[in-house]
Amino acid sequence: MTFMAEDGDKAEVGAGGRKGLVIVYTGDGKGKTTAALGLLTRAWGRGMKVCMLQFIKHERARFGEIRAAEKMGFELIPMGQGFTWRSSDYERDKAICRACWERCVERILAPDGVWDIVALDEITYAFKFRWLTTDEVIEVLKQRPPLRHVVLTGRDAPQELIDFADLVTEMRMVKHPYHDQGIAAQPGIEF
Amino acid sequence: MTFMAEDGDKAEVGAGGRKGLVIVYTGDGKGKTTAALGLLTRAWGRGMKVCMLQFIKHERARFGEIRAAEKMGFELIPMGQGFTWRSSDYERDKAICRACWERCVERILAPDGVWDIVALDEITYAFKFRWLTTDEVIEVLKQRPPLRHVVLTGRDAPQELIDFADLVTEMRMVKHPYHDQGIAAQPGIEF
Repeated sequence: MTFMAEDGDKAEVGAGGRKGLVIVYTGDGKGKTTAALGLLTRAWGRGMKVCMLQFIKHERARFGEIRAAEKMGFELIPMGQGFTWRSSDYERDKAICRACWERCVERILAPDGVWDIVALDEITYAFKFRWLTTDEVIEVLKQRPPLRHVVLTGRDAPQELIDFADLVTEMRMVKHPYHDQGIAAQPGIEF
Repeated sequence: MTFMAEDGDKAEVGAGGRKGLVIVYTGDGKGKTTAALGLLTRAWGRGMKVCMLQFIKHERARFGEIRAAEKMGFELIPMGQGFTWRSSDYERDKAICRACWERCVERILAPDGVWDIVALDEITYAFKFRWLTTDEVIEVLKQRPPLRHVVLTGRDAPQELIDFADLVTEMRMVKHPYHDQGIAAQPGIEF
């Protein structure tokens, strides 16, 4: 079974009208990583195989989402941990990022059934800092098995990625307490 | 400890700069309920006490999020289930909604420590259909214990609620496969 996508490419649709989607959460608002985590949680609730690879080193070592993933028994890899992002050495940072990307590629291209959803959290920073190109990521997404869903998050998603994706939501910041009211980030909410 | 909020009201801040936040996810895009679920998951990962009350009856009886909540052992109450929303009988629908709201009020006003986060999923429909007023909901939110976080989701959040909330994100639909490409909703992703 095939259907005609917007750009005229044929995309395969699996049994029962199933199709792996490319989902992008972008924008300057809160809720991008959070929505990706919610998506994985919902799918995990259905017994699906999900994982998240996080591109950015966060300042707090043990995030709520990491703890949740451990309790739920799904794979969440904080790839930025254990080394420093954005050192003054572009080549070194790029090499680290590319090694991380290889781990993503493995999961994105694994046969159907190995993973149902692969989430690439904050991957857009890799485009911003020119460690990865949008083209090479899209090339890998094109080669993925037909039922593999891939979620990509981060600010400033490139237009090519938006054009390629199936489902794109922009999280727009309407009001932010940490900016507007000087409230400290709250554990369990922010991290 | 107190701090001056934007509107000049004093709001209490708990130990360690903690403060219960009112968080709104609104807009026409995907990811509102999903972000609320992710937020609860993250907090649950930290051992916090979370619950979600869903105002809208969904078409599929056993959503991924319900299954996930069961597996995780947190309370998710699909209040719309077991009866029909939006019958032709406004008074009957309103009475059902108000009974649901009473269950929310109990949780929002329970002493600190009973719940850390109470999520009211799709509550904006109750405003839209005039089963609840924004004013009465804000009145209850004002009375909540200082550390209680409350998350409200749904399209078209009223301006008064946005003004009252601490953190507001609008999910803006950039691209939607079900609208744009005629792709069927995918289990684990959409529901």
